[in-house]
Amino acid sequence: MTGLRLSLNQATVKHLTLDQVVGLCQRHEIEAVGLWRDRVAERGLAPAAAAVRAAGLHVSSLCRGGFFTHADAAARAGALADNRAALTEAAELGADALVLVSGGLVPGSRDLGLARRMVADAVAELVPVAQRLGVRLGVEALHPMFCADRCVVSGLGEALDLALQFPAEAVGVVVDTYHVWWDAGLAGQIARARGRIACFQLADWVLPLPADPLLGRGHLGDGHIDLAQITAQVLAAGYRGFAEVEIFRQEIWDAPADETAATVRRRFGELLG
Amino acid sequence: MTGLRLSLNQATVKHLTLDQVVGLCQRHEIEAVGLWRDRVAERGLAPAAAAVRAAGLHVSSLCRGGFFTHADAAARAGALADNRAALTEAAELGADALVLVSGGLVPGSRDLGLARRMVADAVAELVPVAQRLGVRLGVEALHPMFCADRCVVSGLGEALDLALQFPAEAVGVVVDTYHVWWDAGLAGQIARARGRIACFQLADWVLPLPADPLLGRGHLGDGHIDLAQITAQVLAAGYRGFAEVEIFRQEIWDAPADETAATVRRRFGELLG
Repeated sequence: MTGLRLSLNQATVKHLTLDQVVGLCQRHEIEAVGLWRDRVAERGLAPAAAAVRAAGLHVSSLCRGGFFTHADAAARAGALADNRAALTEAAELGADALVLVSGGLVPGSRDLGLARRMVADAVAELVPVAQRLGVRLGVEALHPMFCADRCVVSGLGEALDLALQFPAEAVGVVVDTYHVWWDAGLAGQIARARGRIACFQLADWVLPLPADPLLGRGHLGDGHIDLAQITAQVLAAGYRGFAEVEIFRQEIWDAPADETAATVRRRFGELLG
Repeated sequence: MTGLRLSLNQATVKHLTLDQVVGLCQRHEIEAVGLWRDRVAERGLAPAAAAVRAAGLHVSSLCRGGFFTHADAAARAGALADNRAALTEAAELGADALVLVSGGLVPGSRDLGLARRMVADAVAELVPVAQRLGVRLGVEALHPMFCADRCVVSGLGEALDLALQFPAEAVGVVVDTYHVWWDAGLAGQIARARGRIACFQLADWVLPLPADPLLGRGHLGDGHIDLAQITAQVLAAGYRGFAEVEIFRQEIWDAPADETAATVRRRFGELLG
Protein backbone atom coordinates (compact mmCIF):
# COMPACT_ATOMS: atom_id res chain seq x y z
CA MET A 1 0.00 0.00 0.00
CA THR A 2 1.65 3.18 -1.17
CA GLY A 3 -1.26 5.40 -0.10
CA LEU A 4 -0.92 7.16 -3.42
CA ARG A 5 -4.22 8.45 -4.78
CA LEU A 6 -5.29 8.17 -8.40
CA SER A 7 -6.16 11.04 -10.69
CA LEU A 8 -7.36 10.65 -14.28
CA ASN A 9 -5.90 13.04 -16.79
CA GLN A 10 -8.65 13.79 -19.25
CA ALA A 11 -6.33 13.31 -22.24
CA THR A 12 -6.62 9.58 -21.52
CA VAL A 13 -10.25 9.83 -22.62
CA LYS A 14 -9.79 12.76 -24.89
CA HIS A 15 -13.06 12.43 -26.79
CA LEU A 16 -15.07 13.19 -23.66
CA THR A 17 -16.33 16.63 -22.74
CA LEU A 18 -15.55 18.01 -19.33
CA ASP A 19 -18.95 17.00 -17.95
CA GLN A 20 -18.50 13.50 -19.33
CA VAL A 21 -15.09 13.18 -17.65
CA VAL A 22 -16.54 14.40 -14.37
CA GLY A 23 -19.26 11.76 -14.62
CA LEU A 24 -16.70 9.10 -15.51
CA CYS A 25 -14.59 9.89 -12.46
CA GLN A 26 -17.65 9.74 -10.25
CA ARG A 27 -18.76 6.38 -11.64
CA HIS A 28 -15.30 4.92 -11.12
CA GLU A 29 -14.65 6.56 -7.74
CA ILE A 30 -11.64 8.48 -8.98
CA GLU A 31 -11.14 11.45 -6.67
CA ALA A 32 -9.16 13.79 -8.89
CA VAL A 33 -8.82 14.85 -12.48
CA GLY A 34 -6.21 16.49 -14.69
CA LEU A 35 -7.94 18.96 -16.99
CA TRP A 36 -7.08 20.37 -20.41
CA ARG A 37 -7.68 23.98 -21.27
CA ASP A 38 -9.59 23.36 -24.49
CA ARG A 39 -12.20 21.25 -22.71
CA VAL A 40 -12.47 23.79 -19.90
CA ALA A 41 -12.94 26.60 -22.44
CA GLU A 42 -15.58 24.60 -24.30
CA ARG A 43 -17.59 24.32 -21.06
CA GLY A 44 -16.77 27.83 -19.87
CA LEU A 45 -14.38 28.46 -17.02
CA ALA A 46 -16.85 29.28 -14.22
CA PRO A 47 -19.31 26.46 -15.07
CA ALA A 48 -16.40 24.03 -15.45
CA ALA A 49 -15.02 24.98 -12.04
CA ALA A 50 -18.50 24.69 -10.54
CA ALA A 51 -19.09 21.27 -12.14
CA VAL A 52 -15.82 19.90 -10.82
CA ARG A 53 -16.44 21.32 -7.35
CA ALA A 54 -20.01 20.06 -7.23
CA ALA A 55 -18.72 16.56 -8.01
CA GLY A 56 -16.19 16.78 -5.17
CA LEU A 57 -13.34 16.29 -7.62
CA HIS A 58 -9.88 17.65 -6.94
CA VAL A 59 -8.01 19.13 -9.93
CA SER A 60 -4.50 17.71 -9.89
CA SER A 61 -3.29 19.70 -12.87
CA LEU A 62 -4.29 22.00 -15.66
CA CYS A 63 -2.69 21.15 -19.01
CA ARG A 64 -1.16 23.17 -20.28
CA GLY A 65 0.92 26.28 -20.56
CA GLY A 66 4.34 26.91 -22.03
CA PHE A 67 5.41 26.98 -25.71
CA PHE A 68 7.56 30.02 -25.04
CA THR A 69 10.13 29.71 -27.84
CA HIS A 70 9.30 32.05 -30.71
CA ALA A 71 11.45 34.02 -33.09
CA ASP A 72 9.57 37.29 -32.87
CA ALA A 73 8.79 39.39 -29.85
CA ALA A 74 5.08 39.62 -30.61
CA ALA A 75 4.71 35.83 -30.58
CA ARG A 76 6.66 35.62 -27.33
CA ALA A 77 4.43 38.27 -25.78
CA GLY A 78 1.40 36.37 -27.04
CA ALA A 79 2.63 33.20 -25.40
CA LEU A 80 3.11 35.02 -22.10
CA ALA A 81 -0.39 36.48 -22.30
CA ASP A 82 -1.80 33.02 -22.97
CA ASN A 83 0.10 31.64 -19.98
CA ARG A 84 -1.22 34.41 -17.74
CA ALA A 85 -4.71 33.41 -18.83
CA ALA A 86 -3.89 29.78 -18.09
CA LEU A 87 -2.76 30.74 -14.59
CA THR A 88 -6.06 32.50 -14.00
CA GLU A 89 -7.89 29.38 -15.13
CA ALA A 90 -5.75 27.16 -12.91
CA ALA A 91 -6.52 29.40 -9.93
CA GLU A 92 -10.27 29.30 -10.60
CA LEU A 93 -10.16 25.52 -10.92
CA GLY A 94 -8.03 25.11 -7.78
CA ALA A 95 -5.48 23.08 -9.77
CA ASP A 96 -2.37 21.82 -8.00
CA ALA A 97 -0.23 22.95 -10.92
CA LEU A 98 -0.23 24.52 -14.33
CA VAL A 99 1.83 22.11 -16.44
CA LEU A 100 4.37 23.88 -18.66
CA VAL A 101 5.75 22.32 -21.85
CA SER A 102 8.51 24.68 -22.79
CA GLY A 103 8.46 24.61 -26.58
CA GLY A 104 11.17 23.35 -28.91
CA LEU A 105 13.93 25.09 -30.83
CA VAL A 106 13.13 28.62 -31.95
CA PRO A 107 11.85 28.31 -35.54
CA GLY A 108 14.75 28.79 -37.95
CA SER A 109 17.36 28.28 -35.25
CA ARG A 110 19.50 25.38 -34.05
CA ASP A 111 20.54 27.20 -30.88
CA LEU A 112 19.45 25.11 -27.90
CA GLY A 113 20.95 27.62 -25.49
CA LEU A 114 18.84 30.42 -26.95
CA ALA A 115 15.68 28.36 -26.64
CA ARG A 116 16.51 27.39 -23.08
CA ARG A 117 17.17 31.00 -22.08
CA MET A 118 13.82 32.03 -23.58
CA VAL A 119 12.11 29.41 -21.44
CA ALA A 120 13.85 30.60 -18.27
CA ASP A 121 13.00 34.23 -19.06
CA ALA A 122 9.35 33.33 -19.63
CA VAL A 123 9.08 31.37 -16.39
CA ALA A 124 10.64 34.32 -14.55
CA GLU A 125 7.97 36.58 -16.05
CA LEU A 126 5.20 34.27 -14.92
CA VAL A 127 6.38 33.70 -11.36
CA PRO A 128 4.95 36.92 -9.89
CA VAL A 129 1.60 36.17 -11.53
CA ALA A 130 1.65 32.63 -10.20
CA GLN A 131 2.47 33.89 -6.73
CA ARG A 132 -0.29 36.48 -6.80
CA LEU A 133 -2.82 33.86 -7.88
CA GLY A 134 -1.49 31.14 -5.58
CA VAL A 135 -0.91 28.73 -8.48
CA ARG A 136 2.18 26.59 -8.91
CA LEU A 137 3.97 26.30 -12.24
CA GLY A 138 5.05 22.75 -13.07
CA VAL A 139 8.02 22.60 -15.42
CA GLU A 140 7.78 19.36 -17.37
CA ALA A 141 10.76 17.60 -18.91
CA LEU A 142 9.72 15.86 -22.11
CA HIS A 143 11.50 12.87 -23.60
CA PRO A 144 14.53 13.95 -25.65
CA MET A 145 12.82 12.75 -28.82
CA PHE A 146 10.66 15.89 -28.53
CA CYS A 147 13.57 18.29 -28.00
CA ALA A 148 13.57 19.86 -31.47
CA ASP A 149 9.87 20.50 -31.93
CA ARG A 150 8.16 20.50 -28.57
CA CYS A 151 10.27 20.83 -25.44
CA VAL A 152 13.92 21.79 -25.02
CA VAL A 153 13.74 20.77 -21.35
CA SER A 154 14.86 17.18 -21.87
CA GLY A 155 15.52 15.70 -18.46
CA LEU A 156 14.28 16.02 -14.90
CA GLY A 157 17.62 17.52 -13.87
CA GLU A 158 17.18 20.36 -16.33
CA ALA A 159 13.63 21.00 -15.20
CA LEU A 160 14.89 21.14 -11.63
CA ASP A 161 17.81 23.43 -12.49
CA LEU A 162 15.17 25.82 -13.78
CA ALA A 163 12.64 25.39 -10.97
CA LEU A 164 15.25 25.84 -8.25
CA GLN A 165 15.87 29.39 -9.42
CA PHE A 166 12.46 30.36 -8.04
CA PRO A 167 10.52 29.97 -4.79
CA ALA A 168 9.27 26.42 -4.23
CA GLU A 169 5.64 27.45 -3.89
CA ALA A 170 5.73 29.17 -7.29
CA VAL A 171 7.68 26.69 -9.43
CA GLY A 172 7.91 22.94 -9.23
CA VAL A 173 8.53 20.15 -11.70
CA VAL A 174 6.34 17.54 -13.36
CA VAL A 175 7.61 13.97 -13.16
CA ASP A 176 6.11 12.04 -16.07
CA THR A 177 7.30 8.45 -16.22
CA TYR A 178 6.97 8.21 -20.02
CA HIS A 179 9.39 11.10 -20.45
CA VAL A 180 12.03 10.43 -17.80
CA TRP A 181 12.19 6.68 -17.13
CA TRP A 182 15.34 6.05 -19.23
CA ASP A 183 17.54 8.48 -17.27
CA ALA A 184 20.43 6.81 -15.42
CA GLY A 185 20.42 9.78 -13.02
CA LEU A 186 16.67 9.67 -12.36
CA ALA A 187 16.78 8.38 -8.79
CA GLY A 188 19.17 11.15 -7.82
CA GLN A 189 17.13 13.81 -9.56
CA ILE A 190 13.89 12.67 -7.90
CA ALA A 191 15.59 12.83 -4.50
CA ARG A 192 16.83 16.32 -5.37
CA ALA A 193 13.26 17.26 -6.32
CA ARG A 194 12.07 16.99 -2.72
CA GLY A 195 9.56 19.77 -2.12
CA ARG A 196 9.44 20.58 -5.83
CA ILE A 197 7.29 17.86 -7.35
CA ALA A 198 4.20 19.73 -8.50
CA CYS A 199 2.67 16.89 -10.46
CA PHE A 200 3.31 13.17 -10.96
CA GLN A 201 2.08 11.64 -14.20
CA LEU A 202 2.05 7.97 -15.11
CA ALA A 203 2.08 6.14 -18.42
CA ASP A 204 4.01 3.15 -19.68
CA TRP A 205 6.47 2.99 -22.61
CA VAL A 206 5.09 0.56 -25.17
CA LEU A 207 7.00 -0.66 -28.22
CA PRO A 208 7.00 -0.37 -31.13
CA LEU A 209 6.65 3.39 -31.09
CA PRO A 210 3.81 4.52 -33.35
CA ALA A 211 4.45 6.88 -36.27
CA ASP A 212 3.56 9.74 -33.94
CA PRO A 213 5.76 9.08 -30.89
CA LEU A 214 3.47 11.23 -28.78
CA LEU A 215 1.08 8.29 -28.88
CA GLY A 216 3.49 5.58 -27.72
CA ARG A 217 2.13 5.54 -24.17
CA GLY A 218 0.23 2.62 -22.81
CA HIS A 219 -1.73 1.40 -19.82
CA LEU A 220 0.35 0.89 -16.69
CA GLY A 221 2.02 -2.51 -16.89
CA ASP A 222 1.78 -2.90 -20.67
CA GLY A 223 5.29 -1.57 -21.30
CA HIS A 224 8.87 -1.41 -20.14
CA ILE A 225 8.91 1.10 -17.29
CA ASP A 226 9.52 0.04 -13.71
CA LEU A 227 6.63 2.18 -12.48
CA ALA A 228 6.69 0.80 -8.95
CA GLN A 229 10.31 1.81 -8.49
CA ILE A 230 9.86 5.34 -9.81
CA THR A 231 6.71 5.74 -7.70
CA ALA A 232 8.59 4.61 -4.59
CA GLN A 233 11.28 7.20 -5.32
CA VAL A 234 8.69 9.94 -5.76
CA LEU A 235 7.04 9.02 -2.46
CA ALA A 236 10.43 8.80 -0.73
CA ALA A 237 11.03 12.37 -1.93
CA GLY A 238 8.03 13.41 0.12
CA TYR A 239 5.42 13.73 -2.61
CA ARG A 240 1.91 13.42 -1.26
CA GLY A 241 -0.15 14.64 -4.20
CA PHE A 242 -2.14 12.61 -6.70
CA ALA A 243 -0.74 10.30 -9.35
CA GLU A 244 -2.28 11.25 -12.66
CA VAL A 245 -2.65 8.59 -15.29
CA GLU A 246 -2.18 10.35 -18.62
CA ILE A 247 -2.12 8.11 -21.69
CA PHE A 248 -2.12 9.28 -25.28
CA ARG A 249 -2.78 6.24 -27.43
CA GLN A 250 -5.08 5.72 -30.38
CA GLU A 251 -6.41 2.29 -29.32
CA ILE A 252 -7.25 3.66 -25.89
CA TRP A 253 -9.00 6.67 -27.39
CA ASP A 254 -10.97 4.26 -29.58
CA ALA A 255 -12.07 2.16 -26.59
CA PRO A 256 -15.21 2.91 -24.53
CA ALA A 257 -14.32 5.43 -21.84
CA ASP A 258 -15.79 3.33 -19.03
CA GLU A 259 -13.60 0.42 -20.07
CA THR A 260 -10.56 2.71 -20.10
CA ALA A 261 -11.36 4.13 -16.67
CA ALA A 262 -11.86 0.64 -15.25
CA THR A 263 -8.52 -0.50 -16.67
CA VAL A 264 -6.75 2.61 -15.37
CA ARG A 265 -8.16 2.05 -11.92
CA ARG A 266 -7.44 -1.68 -11.84
CA ARG A 267 -3.87 -1.38 -13.10
CA PHE A 268 -3.15 1.48 -10.73
CA GLY A 269 -4.40 -0.61 -7.82
CA GLU A 270 -2.45 -3.69 -8.88
CA LEU A 271 0.84 -1.91 -9.48
CA LEU A 272 0.83 1.04 -7.13
CA GLY A 273 -2.17 0.85 -4.80
CA MET B 1 38.81 25.18 -41.71
CA THR B 2 38.45 22.65 -38.97
CA GLY B 3 41.00 20.25 -40.46
CA LEU B 4 38.57 17.47 -39.69
CA ARG B 5 38.71 14.61 -42.21
CA LEU B 6 35.67 12.87 -43.63
CA SER B 7 34.89 9.19 -43.36
CA LEU B 8 31.88 7.51 -44.95
CA ASN B 9 30.11 4.95 -42.83
CA GLN B 10 28.91 2.28 -45.19
CA ALA B 11 25.45 2.16 -43.62
CA THR B 12 24.84 5.46 -45.44
CA VAL B 13 24.93 3.46 -48.69
CA LYS B 14 23.82 0.22 -47.19
CA HIS B 15 22.90 -1.51 -50.45
CA LEU B 16 26.52 -1.47 -51.61
CA THR B 17 28.92 -4.35 -51.14
CA LEU B 18 32.26 -3.72 -49.49
CA ASP B 19 34.04 -3.49 -52.85
CA GLN B 20 31.43 -1.06 -54.12
CA VAL B 21 31.88 1.16 -51.06
CA VAL B 22 35.65 1.08 -51.50
CA GLY B 23 35.22 2.19 -55.10
CA LEU B 24 32.76 4.89 -54.09
CA CYS B 25 35.20 6.34 -51.55
CA GLN B 26 37.96 6.35 -54.14
CA ARG B 27 35.81 8.11 -56.75
CA HIS B 28 34.81 10.77 -54.24
CA GLU B 29 38.23 11.14 -52.63
CA ILE B 30 36.99 10.09 -49.21
CA GLU B 31 39.99 8.86 -47.22
CA ALA B 32 38.30 6.66 -44.64
CA VAL B 33 35.38 4.32 -44.22
CA GLY B 34 33.32 2.93 -41.39
CA LEU B 35 32.62 -0.73 -42.07
CA TRP B 36 29.84 -3.10 -41.03
CA ARG B 37 30.53 -6.66 -40.05
CA ASP B 38 27.95 -8.26 -42.32
CA ARG B 39 29.49 -6.68 -45.41
CA VAL B 40 32.98 -7.64 -44.25
CA ALA B 41 31.85 -11.22 -43.68
CA GLU B 42 30.19 -11.33 -47.08
CA ARG B 43 33.52 -10.41 -48.72
CA GLY B 44 35.63 -12.48 -46.32
CA LEU B 45 37.76 -10.87 -43.62
CA ALA B 46 41.22 -11.20 -45.21
CA PRO B 47 40.12 -10.14 -48.71
CA ALA B 48 38.12 -7.26 -47.22
CA ALA B 49 41.12 -6.04 -45.26
CA ALA B 50 43.31 -6.39 -48.35
CA ALA B 51 40.83 -4.49 -50.53
CA VAL B 52 40.61 -1.61 -48.08
CA ARG B 53 44.39 -1.46 -47.67
CA ALA B 54 45.00 -1.65 -51.42
CA ALA B 55 42.70 1.33 -51.87
CA GLY B 56 44.63 3.32 -49.25
CA LEU B 57 41.49 3.66 -47.15
CA HIS B 58 41.63 4.08 -43.39
CA VAL B 59 38.98 2.20 -41.36
CA SER B 60 37.56 4.67 -38.87
CA SER B 61 35.29 2.14 -37.19
CA LEU B 62 33.88 -1.34 -37.34
CA CYS B 63 30.15 -1.54 -36.61
CA ARG B 64 29.34 -3.24 -34.46
CA GLY B 65 29.64 -5.16 -31.27
CA GLY B 66 27.60 -5.09 -28.11
CA PHE B 67 24.07 -6.40 -27.44
CA PHE B 68 25.16 -7.84 -24.13
CA THR B 69 21.85 -7.90 -22.25
CA HIS B 70 20.36 -11.39 -22.24
CA ALA B 71 18.35 -13.28 -19.67
CA ASP B 72 20.23 -16.57 -19.88
CA ALA B 73 23.91 -17.22 -19.37
CA ALA B 74 24.33 -19.07 -22.67
CA ALA B 75 23.09 -16.08 -24.64
CA ARG B 76 25.38 -13.77 -22.69
CA ALA B 77 28.34 -16.05 -23.37
CA GLY B 78 27.36 -16.15 -27.02
CA ALA B 79 27.34 -12.37 -27.17
CA LEU B 80 30.80 -12.24 -25.63
CA ALA B 81 32.11 -14.78 -28.12
CA ASP B 82 30.66 -12.75 -30.96
CA ASN B 83 32.29 -9.60 -29.59
CA ARG B 84 35.65 -11.37 -29.34
CA ALA B 85 35.28 -12.29 -33.00
CA ALA B 86 34.42 -8.68 -33.80
CA LEU B 87 37.58 -7.51 -32.02
CA THR B 88 39.64 -9.89 -34.15
CA GLU B 89 37.99 -8.47 -37.25
CA ALA B 90 38.61 -4.90 -36.10
CA ALA B 91 42.29 -5.72 -35.53
CA GLU B 92 42.66 -7.27 -38.97
CA LEU B 93 40.98 -4.26 -40.58
CA GLY B 94 43.05 -1.77 -38.57
CA ALA B 95 39.87 -0.07 -37.38
CA ASP B 96 40.16 2.87 -34.98
CA ALA B 97 37.37 1.41 -32.85
CA LEU B 98 34.87 -1.38 -32.48
CA VAL B 99 31.56 0.40 -31.91
CA LEU B 100 29.52 -1.11 -29.08
CA VAL B 101 25.74 -0.75 -28.85
CA SER B 102 24.99 -2.11 -25.42
CA GLY B 103 21.61 -3.75 -25.87
CA GLY B 104 18.32 -2.76 -24.22
CA LEU B 105 16.48 -4.05 -21.19
CA VAL B 106 16.97 -7.71 -20.45
CA PRO B 107 14.00 -9.52 -22.07
CA GLY B 108 11.23 -9.93 -19.53
CA SER B 109 12.75 -7.39 -17.15
CA ARG B 110 12.19 -3.71 -16.40
CA ASP B 111 15.40 -3.45 -14.36
CA LEU B 112 17.61 -0.79 -15.96
CA GLY B 113 20.25 -1.26 -13.29
CA LEU B 114 20.53 -4.96 -14.07
CA ALA B 115 20.93 -4.27 -17.78
CA ARG B 116 23.53 -1.59 -17.13
CA ARG B 117 25.54 -3.89 -14.84
CA MET B 118 25.49 -6.60 -17.53
CA VAL B 119 26.93 -4.12 -20.00
CA ALA B 120 29.70 -3.07 -17.62
CA ASP B 121 30.54 -6.71 -16.87
CA ALA B 122 30.71 -7.54 -20.56
CA VAL B 123 32.96 -4.59 -21.35
CA ALA B 124 35.25 -5.65 -18.48
CA GLU B 125 35.46 -9.14 -20.02
CA LEU B 126 36.38 -7.72 -23.40
CA VAL B 127 39.03 -5.25 -22.25
CA PRO B 128 41.91 -7.77 -21.98
CA VAL B 129 41.07 -9.08 -25.45
CA ALA B 130 40.98 -5.57 -26.84
CA GLN B 131 44.31 -4.77 -25.22
CA ARG B 132 45.93 -7.91 -26.55
CA LEU B 133 44.69 -7.13 -30.07
CA GLY B 134 45.40 -3.42 -29.87
CA VAL B 135 41.80 -2.52 -30.67
CA ARG B 136 39.80 0.16 -28.92
CA LEU B 137 36.24 -0.42 -27.76
CA GLY B 138 33.92 2.53 -28.43
CA VAL B 139 30.95 2.67 -26.07
CA GLU B 140 28.12 4.40 -27.90
CA ALA B 141 25.30 6.22 -26.17
CA LEU B 142 22.11 5.87 -28.16
CA HIS B 143 19.22 8.30 -28.05
CA PRO B 144 16.93 7.61 -25.06
CA MET B 145 14.14 6.58 -27.43
CA PHE B 146 16.12 3.35 -27.93
CA CYS B 147 16.66 2.66 -24.24
CA ALA B 148 14.14 -0.16 -23.87
CA ASP B 149 14.97 -2.22 -26.93
CA ARG B 150 18.44 -1.36 -28.13
CA CYS B 151 20.77 0.51 -25.81
CA VAL B 152 20.49 1.22 -22.09
CA VAL B 153 23.44 3.61 -22.34
CA SER B 154 21.38 6.74 -22.98
CA GLY B 155 23.73 9.70 -22.71
CA LEU B 156 27.35 10.56 -23.33
CA GLY B 157 27.89 10.99 -19.60
CA GLU B 158 26.85 7.39 -18.98
CA ALA B 159 29.07 6.09 -21.77
CA LEU B 160 31.96 8.01 -20.21
CA ASP B 161 31.21 6.79 -16.70
CA LEU B 162 31.63 3.30 -18.12
CA ALA B 163 34.69 3.98 -20.29
CA LEU B 164 36.57 5.75 -17.50
CA GLN B 165 36.63 2.55 -15.48
CA PHE B 166 39.13 1.13 -17.98
CA PRO B 167 42.43 2.20 -19.57
CA ALA B 168 42.01 4.90 -22.20
CA GLU B 169 43.65 2.91 -24.96
CA ALA B 170 41.21 0.04 -24.43
CA VAL B 171 37.88 1.83 -24.00
CA GLY B 172 36.63 5.09 -25.43
CA VAL B 173 33.26 6.51 -26.35
CA VAL B 174 31.45 7.14 -29.60
CA VAL B 175 30.00 10.62 -30.02
CA ASP B 176 27.12 10.39 -32.50
CA THR B 177 25.37 13.70 -33.03
CA TYR B 178 21.98 12.09 -33.79
CA HIS B 179 21.96 10.41 -30.40
CA VAL B 180 23.36 13.07 -28.09
CA TRP B 181 22.58 16.51 -29.53
CA TRP B 182 19.63 17.23 -27.20
CA ASP B 183 21.65 16.89 -23.97
CA ALA B 184 21.91 20.12 -21.95
CA GLY B 185 25.10 18.74 -20.43
CA LEU B 186 26.67 17.76 -23.75
CA ALA B 187 29.38 20.43 -23.89
CA GLY B 188 30.60 19.46 -20.44
CA GLN B 189 30.55 15.76 -21.26
CA ILE B 190 32.51 16.26 -24.49
CA ALA B 191 35.14 18.24 -22.59
CA ARG B 192 35.28 15.43 -20.03
CA ALA B 193 35.75 12.95 -22.89
CA ARG B 194 39.20 14.34 -23.72
CA GLY B 195 41.40 11.41 -24.68
CA ARG B 196 38.40 9.07 -24.77
CA ILE B 197 36.66 9.89 -28.05
CA ALA B 198 37.15 6.73 -30.08
CA CYS B 199 34.80 7.65 -32.89
CA PHE B 200 32.83 10.72 -33.99
CA GLN B 201 29.73 10.11 -36.08
CA LEU B 202 27.62 12.71 -37.81
CA ALA B 203 24.00 12.76 -38.91
CA ASP B 204 21.27 15.36 -38.62
CA TRP B 205 17.93 15.09 -36.79
CA VAL B 206 15.14 15.45 -39.35
CA LEU B 207 11.46 15.82 -38.46
CA PRO B 208 8.99 14.27 -38.61
CA LEU B 209 10.44 11.07 -37.25
CA PRO B 210 9.62 8.12 -39.51
CA ALA B 211 7.68 5.13 -38.18
CA ASP B 212 11.04 3.49 -37.49
CA PRO B 213 12.91 6.16 -35.53
CA LEU B 214 16.21 4.52 -36.42
CA LEU B 215 15.71 6.04 -39.86
CA GLY B 216 15.11 9.64 -38.79
CA ARG B 217 18.63 10.73 -39.66
CA GLY B 218 19.31 13.05 -42.53
CA HIS B 219 22.09 14.68 -44.52
CA LEU B 220 24.13 17.23 -42.59
CA GLY B 221 22.28 20.54 -42.65
CA ASP B 222 18.82 19.10 -43.37
CA GLY B 223 17.79 18.98 -39.74
CA HIS B 224 17.89 20.64 -36.35
CA ILE B 225 21.32 19.85 -34.93
CA ASP B 226 23.98 22.53 -34.51
CA LEU B 227 26.64 20.26 -36.03
CA ALA B 228 29.28 22.99 -36.25
CA GLN B 229 29.05 23.65 -32.52
CA ILE B 230 29.27 20.00 -31.51
CA THR B 231 32.16 19.48 -33.93
CA ALA B 232 34.00 22.46 -32.44
CA GLN B 233 33.55 20.97 -28.98
CA VAL B 234 34.86 17.58 -30.13
CA LEU B 235 37.91 19.21 -31.68
CA ALA B 236 38.46 21.37 -28.60
CA ALA B 237 38.52 18.12 -26.60
CA GLY B 238 41.54 17.08 -28.63
CA TYR B 239 39.92 14.68 -31.07
CA ARG B 240 42.01 14.28 -34.22
CA GLY B 241 40.36 11.24 -35.80
CA PHE B 242 37.93 11.09 -38.70
CA ALA B 243 34.36 12.33 -38.73
CA GLU B 244 32.15 9.54 -39.99
CA VAL B 245 28.95 10.44 -41.75
CA GLU B 246 26.48 7.70 -40.88
CA ILE B 247 22.93 8.20 -42.09
CA PHE B 248 20.15 5.64 -41.93
CA ARG B 249 17.33 6.98 -44.07
CA GLN B 250 15.14 5.29 -46.61
CA GLU B 251 15.21 8.10 -49.22
CA ILE B 252 19.00 8.18 -49.05
CA TRP B 253 19.21 4.41 -49.44
CA ASP B 254 16.91 4.74 -52.44
CA ALA B 255 19.13 7.39 -54.07
CA PRO B 256 22.09 6.56 -56.35
CA ALA B 257 25.16 5.98 -54.17
CA ASP B 258 27.30 8.43 -56.13
CA GLU B 259 24.73 11.14 -55.59
CA THR B 260 24.70 10.32 -51.86
CA ALA B 261 28.50 10.39 -51.61
CA ALA B 262 28.65 13.70 -53.45
CA THR B 263 26.05 15.20 -51.12
CA VAL B 264 27.85 13.84 -48.05
CA ARG B 265 31.11 15.34 -49.22
CA ARG B 266 29.65 18.70 -50.21
CA ARG B 267 27.65 19.16 -46.99
CA PHE B 268 30.61 18.12 -44.87
CA GLY B 269 32.78 20.68 -46.65
CA GLU B 270 30.20 23.45 -46.36
CA LEU B 271 29.42 22.88 -42.71
CA LEU B 272 32.57 21.48 -41.20
CA GLY B 273 35.39 21.59 -43.73
